[in-house]
Amino acid sequence: MGKMNQIIVSIQPLDEEAMAEARMRQDNLTKPQGSLGQLESISIQVVGIKRNSRPRILHKVIFTLAGDHGVTQEGVSAYPSEVTPQMVYNFLRGGAGINVLARLVGAKVVVADLGVASKMEKHENLVDKKVALGTRNMAKGPAMSREEAIRSIEAGIELVEEELPKGIDILGTGDMGIGNTTPSSAITAAMTGADVATVTGRGTGLDDEGQRRKVKVIQKTLEINQPNPKDAIDVLSKVGGFEIGGIAGVILAGARYRIPVVIDGFISGAAALIAASLSPQVKPYLIASHQSAEIGHKAVLKYLGLKPLLNLDLRLGEGTGAALGIFLVEASVKILNEMSTFAEAGVSKKI
Amino acid sequence: MGKMNQIIVSIQPLDEEAMAEARMRQDNLTKPQGSLGQLESISIQVVGIKRNSRPRILHKVIFTLAGDHGVTQEGVSAYPSEVTPQMVYNFLRGGAGINVLARLVGAKVVVADLGVASKMEKHENLVDKKVALGTRNMAKGPAMSREEAIRSIEAGIELVEEELPKGIDILGTGDMGIGNTTPSSAITAAMTGADVATVTGRGTGLDDEGQRRKVKVIQKTLEINQPNPKDAIDVLSKVGGFEIGGIAGVILAGARYRIPVVIDGFISGAAALIAASLSPQVKPYLIASHQSAEIGHKAVLKYLGLKPLLNLDLRLGEGTGAALGIFLVEASVKILNEMSTFAEAGVSKKI
Repeated sequence: MGKMNQIIVSIQPLDEEAMAEARMRQDNLTKPQGSLGQLESISIQVVGIKRNSRPRILHKVIFTLAGDHGVTQEGVSAYPSEVTPQMVYNFLRGGAGINVLARLVGAKVVVADLGVASKMEKHENLVDKKVALGTRNMAKGPAMSREEAIRSIEAGIELVEEELPKGIDILGTGDMGIGNTTPSSAITAAMTGADVATVTGRGTGLDDEGQRRKVKVIQKTLEINQPNPKDAIDVLSKVGGFEIGGIAGVILAGARYRIPVVIDGFISGAAALIAASLSPQVKPYLIASHQSAEIGHKAVLKYLGLKPLLNLDLRLGEGTGAALGIFLVEASVKILNEMSTFAEAGVSKKI
Repeated sequence: MGKMNQIIVSIQPLDEEAMAEARMRQDNLTKPQGSLGQLESISIQVVGIKRNSRPRILHKVIFTLAGDHGVTQEGVSAYPSEVTPQMVYNFLRGGAGINVLARLVGAKVVVADLGVASKMEKHENLVDKKVALGTRNMAKGPAMSREEAIRSIEAGIELVEEELPKGIDILGTGDMGIGNTTPSSAITAAMTGADVATVTGRGTGLDDEGQRRKVKVIQKTLEINQPNPKDAIDVLSKVGGFEIGGIAGVILAGARYRIPVVIDGFISGAAALIAASLSPQVKPYLIASHQSAEIGHKAVLKYLGLKPLLNLDLRLGEGTGAALGIFLVEASVKILNEMSTFAEAGVSKKI
């Protein structure tokens, strides 16, 4: 059995017993029952994931994966592809949005090259998992081979496994790849059955004409490639991206190793569709950090049955939403661990 | 001129020049324009408030004000009034929700007694601003005198002024008072003209019958007292509460001293209605931390024209939502200050 399948078959359900214990504790903390809303439910989910009724979140890791997209030849992005490696160097120097927010929440950022279309300079903090120099133009045929799709997922799994010895109490996903809302929309349309126009947004800032062109390109891509929605590897290889496959791998590994997986926005959401199709068992491990301004994200979250923690009109990617989400998960766990019970505080209960 | 009016006439508009500078910087940071959504707009608002295009947020203070309500005699709360002082002691020992979240975001909590219905033990961290031993039963007449209403607002102003020398870069509001969703619903109905039933929720956990009773009590209160919506002091004195007046004072003082004011949920929102009626100039200083699960809050935010940062079904009060909101404001300011520009990072701009 390959690494990907080994991971998939090893994913276990959440620990219901620990969750019941945490729920009882939440109900005895000095607040009306349920009055901390999603902070309560998230804390209980984390307990179930970590099999520990009083979990700790010390090591926080955000995996930001980069890749390029041949489909940019069709004029689907407002920025040139050269921005992908430029932004990777920006991540390595600490000047990007994800660096700022990760520092604020105390998270490490693991930056990995899954398929940037140029040779990257070696850097101690850049993990080289390059599958190929960018995908092929999916408007003219498959974005990658089936083997490359599996390789990208396994590369994501490796990223998590290589970080495990240093400790991961929670992980966030992130992406960088000029043009990658196009494969994300294609994946979303293919997997959920949604109409292309309803799941295709402006990405980094297309004008009206650009958006219309993008919709047509995606429609053509789906017609030419005919991805099979029941075969996630088929979808990923035909209309996906290397960083999207990598993020799917990070998600699968997170579930396998019982780590809460805080997913970022639309691109991470498309990767979650791939991961959840490969194993529906990953779903209880997922926490949706935010509702992206990119319109296709709504269909993704609905399909996965996830309620986002934030709705701030974010659409940057990189893991920026995930960083904020990690903070809220930490807040939920601190509430569970640090609040006094009615008995401890000598506070009267409900009449 | 009394202290309250002195504060009101001293509130200035935001600094448009500093905001324009910050907006230009946001547009030159290494991200598509607008891609950090509300984090961008909040950072620009903070700049305008603080008259500083690169503001710092070091000293964070949450003001949690407590008071009791005579209207609890009508059976409008699921918890007994004795919980108000019990929870104040819980705050002072650090075991409540607000303590946990304030510690997480690095905020100081100033706990003040504005009108708890029992004599409180002296404590170095409890600020005594008691106006009276709880309000009178507003279902039978005014909750307090006009003088007491003004005194409660001035007590809130004093709380901010006494803290100013120690530094306040941002403030959050919070409340504790068994029964205080009842005056908050009454204030909201009186000030916005909304129907009582549409702005009256379950508070700490009323059942269906309890909620129906609460609606009737509030309707009766408004009929008996006939608060004048054009006179905020009249509304506060007839159907308000001491901690609500105190929070209105904190809000006015925040605006006066150019401090971003992060308002908590429904009770703080009712106080914001009072403050904004006394001076519409406070509105640009307000940041709504979250959309409360308490139904009346929606009408408050709509009336004030505020978009909440979070929607986590919170309904605890104490300033818990404000604490999370303070974190998001800090995130927005860090983005503004710490991200690289396109030029600094050598990243290509839009095609």
